[in-house]
Amino acid sequence: MKISELGGETALISLIREKYGAAGVGDLALSIGDDGALVKCGESLMIITTDLLVEGTHFRMDINDAYLLGWKSAAVNISDVAAMGGLPTFSFVSIGLPDISVAVVESIYQGMYDASNAFGSVIAGGDTVGSECGIVINVTQLGTVEPDRAARRSGAKPGDVVIVTNTLGDSRAGLEMLLKFGLDEARRVSAFLVERHLKPEPRVWEARSAVETGRVHSMMDLSDGLASDIGKLCEASGVGVRIFADKLPVSEDLHIAAARLDADTTALAAGGGEDYELLITCAAEDAQAIIKVISSTGSSAAVIGEIVDGGDVVLVSSDGNEQPMPVGWKHF
Amino acid sequence: MKISELGGETALISLIREKYGAAGVGDLALSIGDDGALVKCGESLMIITTDLLVEGTHFRMDINDAYLLGWKSAAVNISDVAAMGGLPTFSFVSIGLPDISVAVVESIYQGMYDASNAFGSVIAGGDTVGSECGIVINVTQLGTVEPDRAARRSGAKPGDVVIVTNTLGDSRAGLEMLLKFGLDEARRVSAFLVERHLKPEPRVWEARSAVETGRVHSMMDLSDGLASDIGKLCEASGVGVRIFADKLPVSEDLHIAAARLDADTTALAAGGGEDYELLITCAAEDAQAIIKVISSTGSSAAVIGEIVDGGDVVLVSSDGNEQPMPVGWKHF
Repeated sequence: MKISELGGETALISLIREKYGAAGVGDLALSIGDDGALVKCGESLMIITTDLLVEGTHFRMDINDAYLLGWKSAAVNISDVAAMGGLPTFSFVSIGLPDISVAVVESIYQGMYDASNAFGSVIAGGDTVGSECGIVINVTQLGTVEPDRAARRSGAKPGDVVIVTNTLGDSRAGLEMLLKFGLDEARRVSAFLVERHLKPEPRVWEARSAVETGRVHSMMDLSDGLASDIGKLCEASGVGVRIFADKLPVSEDLHIAAARLDADTTALAAGGGEDYELLITCAAEDAQAIIKVISSTGSSAAVIGEIVDGGDVVLVSSDGNEQPMPVGWKHF
Repeated sequence: MKISELGGETALISLIREKYGAAGVGDLALSIGDDGALVKCGESLMIITTDLLVEGTHFRMDINDAYLLGWKSAAVNISDVAAMGGLPTFSFVSIGLPDISVAVVESIYQGMYDASNAFGSVIAGGDTVGSECGIVINVTQLGTVEPDRAARRSGAKPGDVVIVTNTLGDSRAGLEMLLKFGLDEARRVSAFLVERHLKPEPRVWEARSAVETGRVHSMMDLSDGLASDIGKLCEASGVGVRIFADKLPVSEDLHIAAARLDADTTALAAGGGEDYELLITCAAEDAQAIIKVISSTGSSAAVIGEIVDGGDVVLVSSDGNEQPMPVGWKHF
């Protein structure tokens, strides 16, 4: 049976986790299945998260540039640390390279360096090898978080409200425009959306300010798209959710792109991936406090739904119609 | 300028380290340039090491099997932890996969699981993604070591003797036979050498027993071959070395393979890579104590040379002739 016949990446990860994973062993506080693992480290918890990017699967050099590729490689891992309420500390970069220009390699590292530096992290090691099949980048990011501030996916409770930061769907729209129009034309239509796809901003300060209220029940970052990711949060927490379509925060440029792409803004916002925004649940009475502290970082935040009993992941349209959430990213 | 024109992997790593690396920042005790990084973690040091394996560059599935590929992916990282005197704790596995058989993926994980388990480590997380260009595996291995036991490359002193564990060149001979004869015939010539290449044994207990004597000045594992690796140790320590060709420990099977491959045993032992044996330096008067404790683990150990002033890396032949050490592995 091939991976695609098993059910793709998600099914394969479940199988691997069940057969070869570990949790609660020794100093391991949390394992496979969250944004990162948590390992006891003195009085703190160390967060460890890793992401593998393969040319052709995750990026194409013809609609990207080396600096932004480096930035994003670091940023998506820093985003996972943020999603657990932590501060990034050190990263380890493995890179597989064809015999390409040294200047391109330097641009990749400069992007990683700048993203790391912007959030207080440093590149502390790695591995550099040859690759005969395109560029391969694996970043392992470490972070640190106080045990009483560590946010997990599993803490959502019925009655919680669901909060997201900023706007959704921008990255997906940026990608679709890059694929359809190429880098230059896509930037002419909306430099904002292209940047949202190629240069995501990890929400480190937003997440820290949220967990420091002590009122966050669960948190994760949106990497595979709201529809897919809220499903994972609900599964981890043993709850369901109702998301209100007309509350999904979307940018003005998303409307412009939707028109150009002949796409639906709600589908882009709910189904699109790589937002790297935060998904937070908390008690309804704490929502305004959390939204307020997030606003103080310069980001916005809004309530988009409510956690309910059961396991259904439902999108409620403006006319009250309810439907299962559309499916998000698929890697296989 | 292309990577190959710059001087390949080694030159590229130097450039990256200089421009984007960090050491001595916050809790970072040791960074790029050793077998792993060291990060303060309560009373202990956490070792972090990472290795990227790319199909076509590091392995070929036609002369390998999935289980052994998994074993080796874990083992080479565990070896880096051992080389710093530590015990492996947790690993994080990123894997890029074409749409291959699930059974192959399970075999890879089973190999990683068994290697981890054999040395007290567990798989604690990772990333699983699609790849359009063959299998890509990145393992980030964590380990732990007491600050006064952590072994570095930089501690060798003139007057030290150089010790290696077990025999050298076996892995290289195994690889050359695999490339020349294929898996089945190579195993008929020497199953031992093929296993030495495909299923390396990290020297965790050997390294622990050595550092527990408190007499190790410097240590590393032999991944790129003695000639290349002793050069790195000398550079890190600011010393030179004289290695005695007739003291290099070689297996009986290496002689058999050398005859079949029309190769020189000394060249295989000194220039071959992927031994994953330990290279240790200590004061001459402590050598027997270290060799004795290593012997108690079931491995052998032998003195092969002496650390000297200056930076020359010299191979002394049995007739007293001195020459620069032959070059080891090259990835690019």
